[in-house]
Amino acid sequence: MDFKVSGSLFTSAMSDINKVISSRSVIPILSGIKIVANENGLTLTGSNSDIFIERIIPSLINGEKIVEISEFGNVVVLSKYLNELLKKLPDDIHMKSDFNGSITIKSGNIETKLNGFDSNEYPKLPEMDSDNNVKVPFGKLMEAIKQTGFAVSKSESRPVLTGVKMEFQQNKLICTATDSHRLARREVHIESEIQQSFVVPSTSLSELMHLKESESSNVDIYYTNNFIVFKTANSSLYSRLIEGSFPNVQALVPSESKSTITINTKGLMEGIDRACVFSTEWKNNNVNLKIVDDARIKIASNATEVGMIEEYQEIIQIDGQNDIQMTFDGRFMLEALKGIQEENVTISFGGMMKPIVIKPQHSGACLNLISPLRTY
Amino acid sequence: MDFKVSGSLFTSAMSDINKVISSRSVIPILSGIKIVANENGLTLTGSNSDIFIERIIPSLINGEKIVEISEFGNVVVLSKYLNELLKKLPDDIHMKSDFNGSITIKSGNIETKLNGFDSNEYPKLPEMDSDNNVKVPFGKLMEAIKQTGFAVSKSESRPVLTGVKMEFQQNKLICTATDSHRLARREVHIESEIQQSFVVPSTSLSELMHLKESESSNVDIYYTNNFIVFKTANSSLYSRLIEGSFPNVQALVPSESKSTITINTKGLMEGIDRACVFSTEWKNNNVNLKIVDDARIKIASNATEVGMIEEYQEIIQIDGQNDIQMTFDGRFMLEALKGIQEENVTISFGGMMKPIVIKPQHSGACLNLISPLRTY
Repeated sequence: MDFKVSGSLFTSAMSDINKVISSRSVIPILSGIKIVANENGLTLTGSNSDIFIERIIPSLINGEKIVEISEFGNVVVLSKYLNELLKKLPDDIHMKSDFNGSITIKSGNIETKLNGFDSNEYPKLPEMDSDNNVKVPFGKLMEAIKQTGFAVSKSESRPVLTGVKMEFQQNKLICTATDSHRLARREVHIESEIQQSFVVPSTSLSELMHLKESESSNVDIYYTNNFIVFKTANSSLYSRLIEGSFPNVQALVPSESKSTITINTKGLMEGIDRACVFSTEWKNNNVNLKIVDDARIKIASNATEVGMIEEYQEIIQIDGQNDIQMTFDGRFMLEALKGIQEENVTISFGGMMKPIVIKPQHSGACLNLISPLRTY
Repeated sequence: MDFKVSGSLFTSAMSDINKVISSRSVIPILSGIKIVANENGLTLTGSNSDIFIERIIPSLINGEKIVEISEFGNVVVLSKYLNELLKKLPDDIHMKSDFNGSITIKSGNIETKLNGFDSNEYPKLPEMDSDNNVKVPFGKLMEAIKQTGFAVSKSESRPVLTGVKMEFQQNKLICTATDSHRLARREVHIESEIQQSFVVPSTSLSELMHLKESESSNVDIYYTNNFIVFKTANSSLYSRLIEGSFPNVQALVPSESKSTITINTKGLMEGIDRACVFSTEWKNNNVNLKIVDDARIKIASNATEVGMIEEYQEIIQIDGQNDIQMTFDGRFMLEALKGIQEENVTISFGGMMKPIVIKPQHSGACLNLISPLRTY
């Protein structure tokens, strides 16, 4: 292997991959980055055993030569050191593999060698069947993940809840996540002919969100029984799927409510954020919400050792009872509200110890369910 | 106590103080911030028992009313919570003390209470004698601290070495720091009539450097046997002094050298920074410096497990031998070079296992001494 490339271009292509690679991986070779030079240009691959990320630096961009390859080949070298080094070298980089798997990098008067691994030992990427494929606009997919991913379970006790369920139906994608105390669900309209559902680890989805792609570009999704691949113009992210059956969450969504209020999204979010200052000493960030009368709600929180806060906010519209009071996890409320772009939200109260439903005022595509906390 | 103030102004005044205050202080009241409202405006005080920082928000700035005080008084409240809260409240803040030491903060429809401490129990600031005083331009003082503070000892085994020695002589201030492996010394010209020296904890000096003051403003320094105060336009920083006798470092500076080279500062710094990528696996960041011939030095480092780097840099001028090779702590070199603004530096080699001397090419006011490492 022997090629010349701009160091800054290489580093920027590496950056998404380098984040995934742990320098203390249990499988030593996974602390390395795989570099392949062939007729397509350079392909960089990194993995943390759950995820593989592959990134291509094409030989030509807009007709301009980006990579000058004089010998094809491949190497695996320690990602952390390569990354640190490239940041500190001048921009003209000449990389060359040695017989023993190490590489020599020359740049101006500087010569450096990095030890490598036997690249034949690098795990093979799973093969994908190009028939099992669906295309999704990147922006829409990101929005659906952002509006659900926060609600996954942080505990490994039920692994299936640590993932986001992605359900493809006729012209529809439904993303759902729940940690059994709250639920987030988001439907997006896409062009799809497949009927399939997958549970994708939320850690893989957050890496996917970090890929720098334009909102309007498309993601090709390929899948097998165990793996899913998100393929964008220059990157591919391979993720394992989580096995096990995802709970039937549709049945949890209450069909009726005792009271539904409409309220300003930003105002409510700021109010709950303030209340959370005092809620941190509670295990569940207790924040109390009370419908005072037809016109006002009160948001309150108190911490005996520290102090208390209470504030009133205007109700835009109310349908039903005006004497409801409940305590929620303030962080759950905040995370649910953060994903809502509409000016106003509706909150439906199902009654004592029943979950509340938070929705944007006009769109039914986004839904959040939060269970109240017991305060006794 | 009862006053109205802009929340953002208050928060910005608090920010320097809040950094010093630990929310888990052994002395509970020191996790609080003291707020005094009197005829001068508001005075905020915070401490971590080594340092006190006092900041004044005057009632009037440029004739404009900033603070509206309707009742004088003082309180001590938990700094962490007050700070978090103020960031999240609208800008119009009305603060009022309650009979039991707590405060009520009102802002729009929001009402919040923060518990307080008995403000009489807050430690008194040491009294300063206004005769023991010297005036130093803020910018010059900061530069001298920046060029020496990095060299203090990180270990508490010889407490006096954890401080910077500030020595005032006739129209001169000399700052010195050493951890016994290296030494940094900086002389600045000031107007001074006093002959005094103090050893100031480097932690206090780094807080001082964080105070937002204009370079051209003056710092009034007051001192007693145990305390020193740095007083700027709006802030005062009180620091304890370190007792014990600082080593006589003048004797350590070698009077002659086997070889002195002049070299570009930025290039050398970048080269050593690159070499440090491979030196991190050594206890002392081993970087090797070799005078190859009259025209070039070689900077090299290697880590058996990872790889190696070597590069050549041009010598601008050489006086003496051209066959010298030594190993140094790369981090020490970097820290010394960072403080030097001149385009070129001179490095003087005293011979085998003797410390090297690094100086800006033209100014004798700044001097760094670094001991070589044994590599066997």
